[in-house]
Amino acid sequence: MAITHQAPSRLFTSDNAAGAHPDILAALVRANESHALAYGQDKYTKQAKESFSKLFAADVRTEFVFGGTGANVLALACILKPADAVVCTSWAHIAVDETGAPEKILGAKLIDLPSTDAKLRPQDIRSVHHMRGNIHHVQPAVVSITQSTELGTVYTPEEVRALCETAHELDMLVHMDGARLSNATAVFGATPEALRSFTIDAGVDVLSFGAMKAGVMFGEAVVFLKPNLGDRVEYIRKQITQLNSKMRFISAQYVELLETGLFFKLGAQANAMALALFDATKHHKILGLTTPPVVNSLFPILPQPARSALQDWSFFWDWDIEAQQVRWMTAWDTTQADIESFARGVEAALAI
Amino acid sequence: MAITHQAPSRLFTSDNAAGAHPDILAALVRANESHALAYGQDKYTKQAKESFSKLFAADVRTEFVFGGTGANVLALACILKPADAVVCTSWAHIAVDETGAPEKILGAKLIDLPSTDAKLRPQDIRSVHHMRGNIHHVQPAVVSITQSTELGTVYTPEEVRALCETAHELDMLVHMDGARLSNATAVFGATPEALRSFTIDAGVDVLSFGAMKAGVMFGEAVVFLKPNLGDRVEYIRKQITQLNSKMRFISAQYVELLETGLFFKLGAQANAMALALFDATKHHKILGLTTPPVVNSLFPILPQPARSALQDWSFFWDWDIEAQQVRWMTAWDTTQADIESFARGVEAALAI
Amino acid sequence: MAITHQAPSRLFTSDNAAGAHPDILAALVRANESHALAYGQDKYTKQAKESFSKLFAADVRTEFVFGGTGANVLALACILKPADAVVCTSWAHIAVDETGAPEKILGAKLIDLPSTDAKLRPQDIRSVHHMRGNIHHVQPAVVSITQSTELGTVYTPEEVRALCETAHELDMLVHMDGARLSNATAVFGATPEALRSFTIDAGVDVLSFGAMKAGVMFGEAVVFLKPNLGDRVEYIRKQITQLNSKMRFISAQYVELLETGLFFKLGAQANAMALALFDATKHHKILGLTTPPVVNSLFPILPQPARSALQDWSFFWDWDIEAQQVRWMTAWDTTQADIESFARGVEAALAI
Amino acid sequence: MAITHQAPSRLFTSDNAAGAHPDILAALVRANESHALAYGQDKYTKQAKESFSKLFAADVRTEFVFGGTGANVLALACILKPADAVVCTSWAHIAVDETGAPEKILGAKLIDLPSTDAKLRPQDIRSVHHMRGNIHHVQPAVVSITQSTELGTVYTPEEVRALCETAHELDMLVHMDGARLSNATAVFGATPEALRSFTIDAGVDVLSFGAMKAGVMFGEAVVFLKPNLGDRVEYIRKQITQLNSKMRFISAQYVELLETGLFFKLGAQANAMALALFDATKHHKILGLTTPPVVNSLFPILPQPARSALQDWSFFWDWDIEAQQVRWMTAWDTTQADIESFARGVEAALAI
Repeated sequence: MAITHQAPSRLFTSDNAAGAHPDILAALVRANESHALAYGQDKYTKQAKESFSKLFAADVRTEFVFGGTGANVLALACILKPADAVVCTSWAHIAVDETGAPEKILGAKLIDLPSTDAKLRPQDIRSVHHMRGNIHHVQPAVVSITQSTELGTVYTPEEVRALCETAHELDMLVHMDGARLSNATAVFGATPEALRSFTIDAGVDVLSFGAMKAGVMFGEAVVFLKPNLGDRVEYIRKQITQLNSKMRFISAQYVELLETGLFFKLGAQANAMALALFDATKHHKILGLTTPPVVNSLFPILPQPARSALQDWSFFWDWDIEAQQVRWMTAWDTTQADIESFARGVEAALAI
Repeated sequence: MAITHQAPSRLFTSDNAAGAHPDILAALVRANESHALAYGQDKYTKQAKESFSKLFAADVRTEFVFGGTGANVLALACILKPADAVVCTSWAHIAVDETGAPEKILGAKLIDLPSTDAKLRPQDIRSVHHMRGNIHHVQPAVVSITQSTELGTVYTPEEVRALCETAHELDMLVHMDGARLSNATAVFGATPEALRSFTIDAGVDVLSFGAMKAGVMFGEAVVFLKPNLGDRVEYIRKQITQLNSKMRFISAQYVELLETGLFFKLGAQANAMALALFDATKHHKILGLTTPPVVNSLFPILPQPARSALQDWSFFWDWDIEAQQVRWMTAWDTTQADIESFARGVEAALAI
Repeated sequence: MAITHQAPSRLFTSDNAAGAHPDILAALVRANESHALAYGQDKYTKQAKESFSKLFAADVRTEFVFGGTGANVLALACILKPADAVVCTSWAHIAVDETGAPEKILGAKLIDLPSTDAKLRPQDIRSVHHMRGNIHHVQPAVVSITQSTELGTVYTPEEVRALCETAHELDMLVHMDGARLSNATAVFGATPEALRSFTIDAGVDVLSFGAMKAGVMFGEAVVFLKPNLGDRVEYIRKQITQLNSKMRFISAQYVELLETGLFFKLGAQANAMALALFDATKHHKILGLTTPPVVNSLFPILPQPARSALQDWSFFWDWDIEAQQVRWMTAWDTTQADIESFARGVEAALAI
Repeated sequence: MAITHQAPSRLFTSDNAAGAHPDILAALVRANESHALAYGQDKYTKQAKESFSKLFAADVRTEFVFGGTGANVLALACILKPADAVVCTSWAHIAVDETGAPEKILGAKLIDLPSTDAKLRPQDIRSVHHMRGNIHHVQPAVVSITQSTELGTVYTPEEVRALCETAHELDMLVHMDGARLSNATAVFGATPEALRSFTIDAGVDVLSFGAMKAGVMFGEAVVFLKPNLGDRVEYIRKQITQLNSKMRFISAQYVELLETGLFFKLGAQANAMALALFDATKHHKILGLTTPPVVNSLFPILPQPARSALQDWSFFWDWDIEAQQVRWMTAWDTTQADIESFARGVEAALAI
């Protein structure tokens, strides 16, 4: 039996499914004037870099890349030495969803530790420290954490600080994969201060600053919060195929995103809509939605035939087939009307 | 002494300096509607792939990447086996202008042969064939040619065919770096038939199909003219950091570019403007412009102080400092007015 | 307080600590006559390869390398395609004791699964099969098992066969790291038939054939039990720095090892001595030695101050510091007198 | 027509065809006593490292590897940074005879410059310096020279010093591939002082110290003449598969080689025999042997049918088929009787 309501205008599959925010698009159109020097020697790139330094209230070094995997690989490539390894959770995007790009391009092992909430703790870092100095083992040298995590959890500023302190004490550096940084920032107030609290102020060394999930059409940034770590970044970026010739089109988007506060607003909107979806569906006990989402994803239990019926009506991804668990994810453009429509669909599906 | 004329609206530095064609931009804006599945599972990507098959009048396999270096590396990664090497000229973009991306990511040696016109000949391929079967040598397995070349020359369809025949006879494959494919196609008629004549009809196996220099904002394509060569391409693309999550924005540009014939028009325009610039400046004998440009670049001799004066007025790159040679390059958007303005500047500079 | 008995002539640190068997040394001396063509074009190498085919009663392809890590990396390099991954246990030598050589040289991820006994089961292989066909994941393509394992356990022929059947059903290949193949073979009878039962007869595709722990001075072999898998092996071997110019000196050792049956005898001797050490010490309940060793290692609990006293007297390695666990390992040359002497030391240490 | 003389006892194919010197073999036998800690924690390795410091009259850092390609790759791996390139001649062993191992394992481009005598000059280094600072180019960072060269020429101490001064002035390091270091040293006196004159005294930073062509059975050394350059060498050595578990067997050979002066004697002997062969054959004008060999190889012209007849009788390798040029190479064990016998064969062959 099919659901007959009107499906929502937007999908709950992924924040990747959303397009670009109209203001971002307008910035792209404005940047498309006449000629500009290629490879970042244009005024937009200069301005975008300054926007990042303003955002972090520090003289950080920012370089743009095409996409998220490129950002992570570039960030890590700049700070790994031969025979070094990266410590992360076994949920980490770099460990499971980048088709081995880090191993291939960095030639480095990822030491992926189990974690029930996709977060690392200081003791996790300490647990691998015994490898240091043993020539038969890779050398744990970089800790990579994701904020917000692949499971929709977040690190508090204090948690990040504790990790950074432990890492630095053990002569390791900290990379943060911020593919959903905007959503994480919203948790702590959606302000520059909130962002700084769990990044630069907490001691993070290098940041993959993602905005494709926060309304940008294309392009991500790598921000060296310790600028000297990026000394070779421009050579390495070209070498790993991530240098955009028509750079101004990435930069102009970031100028718009940062100078207008859009970055903060859009993550908050996605989070708010996930909460609204939670509120609109939690009464279906079968879904097992007992805890409000922290950021923009829900992981309900959805047995058959409800699951297929709902997916046929408005597609979303399975999360854990055996557990009958799916993922609903909101985006920067999800509206209250989308929530209401989808909730009606859920109700109809569960009634089948 | 400075030049006082009004500088042209567009630069002659590189075709990279141009932005996106208005129709391309409009296609991007249209594609920015609501949601679409990520990573290429959208209708634009389906359509764009079909456009390529139509263009080549064959069931080719096309996949999109972010940029030109990514296209070359991906194309080669799909067809190289361990210990294989790539034969190219010492002018090849892959050999000198990609910061060693092929060596780094492919782990493969480039056998870069000298060439006065940046073109390979069948005998060049034969000259390295003795390496085959010797376990101490890398195995020449792929020939990579650039069309149009880094020196602004082009291969005729017959020349490409001869290369492909020799390569295939020697059990090698042929890759074409088509960063300036539109300009090359214009030389032979600016039609699909012209394009096919020196690619698929001539026996080329894999093609880096560039359009960023032909009016696209971002994104290039890899076209497997022998589709089975791309069996692993999707895995490898993600692994080398070249999979765009919001793929529709690349695809939509290519649909516009191919379905409207814009691809053919814009390369022809750039070439025509280079010829116009030649005609407008060749009477300055000191420039040494004796032969009309084949595609969209001129390499005049420009001694000091004329050179600096002209660069200060409207910037372009030096080509060979010792030879006092510079490069003037037109783009898809160069106008007759730009030519006239620039020619006045040249005249003024030479008079200093 | 120090132990005052006479320490044993040989260490219990590792089978790596032993030298070469006198017959092997004699073979080396004999091979040192006059000149022989380099890189394997000598009579010893021809003979050694034939010895391997005789040993496996099949036309296998054998190539020699310098050491064990080289053997594993070469074997895997020959059978992995781009974006492929290797499935192994988290105890695997390739995963923890090769300083990331596989990731560095192969550019491949190792999917290292937890295992209490360092053995994989068919369900482990099935558990990662969902990654196949997902372009965001590495593709599990090779299963690598160690025989005998890093924890001193062995796979029965039936267990290996079950793994191979599952792997092949899922379109994967099976590599066996046989660094301690001689010890494993001894478990099943120390005969060619025993060796074949859990290798070629069980369906293993490629074998790292180790003999440095079985009396060889230097050099290991990679045996392609499916010979066509080694089609590119000679190029890859040179490329990964594992081609010995004076090959005859490795080959001559293997001729001696295989033609005389020494390979079978020496592993059995090491195993027998481990059993003798077990018998001579198991009455010390504190050691926790409840189960006889299967091959040549014991993992007793040894609290302080006994541990340090015993290590000072005759060194061996800690295994798990927190658990106060150490490793005692016998070698091909361990004697009954060594066992008796060491057992006296254990007794004295525990009495401190 | 076949040559009927008695063929020489030793081949003139390559110095790789020779075995181990009896004293080296005796050292190996002596080292095969009982047990020694693995991976270099043995007394022979300690002593061998001290021998190297004595040899260079400086506190150098020495680590052993299995073979020559491993030595070169390890040396370069320790001193290259991401996006760096190696400058060498197009004759360099690393460029043509290592099956692309440097590109594969280092991920680095080799900038191989043409050279008529396989030697680099300071101006060669300067000629690529323009690449520095250009993010589209690999960064020339290491100069690799071979001593004696692949063409049998040698650098004088002054020439090496000039190269090192230029390299260091341009912020580059110098690696020397000393696969035939013993032969080169013999040219300047066959003493430690001679060796130092063109290595440490001339400013070389890292040295691949080869001895397999000077009487060692297996194993080469990497000597960091600036010891801090080897800070990560032990991790990298294991990672690139070049760590020998039974290290003592390499080390013991080097102790013998260095402490007895054998290293100096054997290269001199090979050189002397090449000169003797020159003297014994130069009167055959057709051979074109006008200049005495500097080290241990001759490159005569040998037309058919003499060539095949001589090769059938006592095999050696072709060098340049088109030029009818072959290579005759002496080894550390070539005798005056071998020379006389071979010269008779040459005479007979030319008479056919």
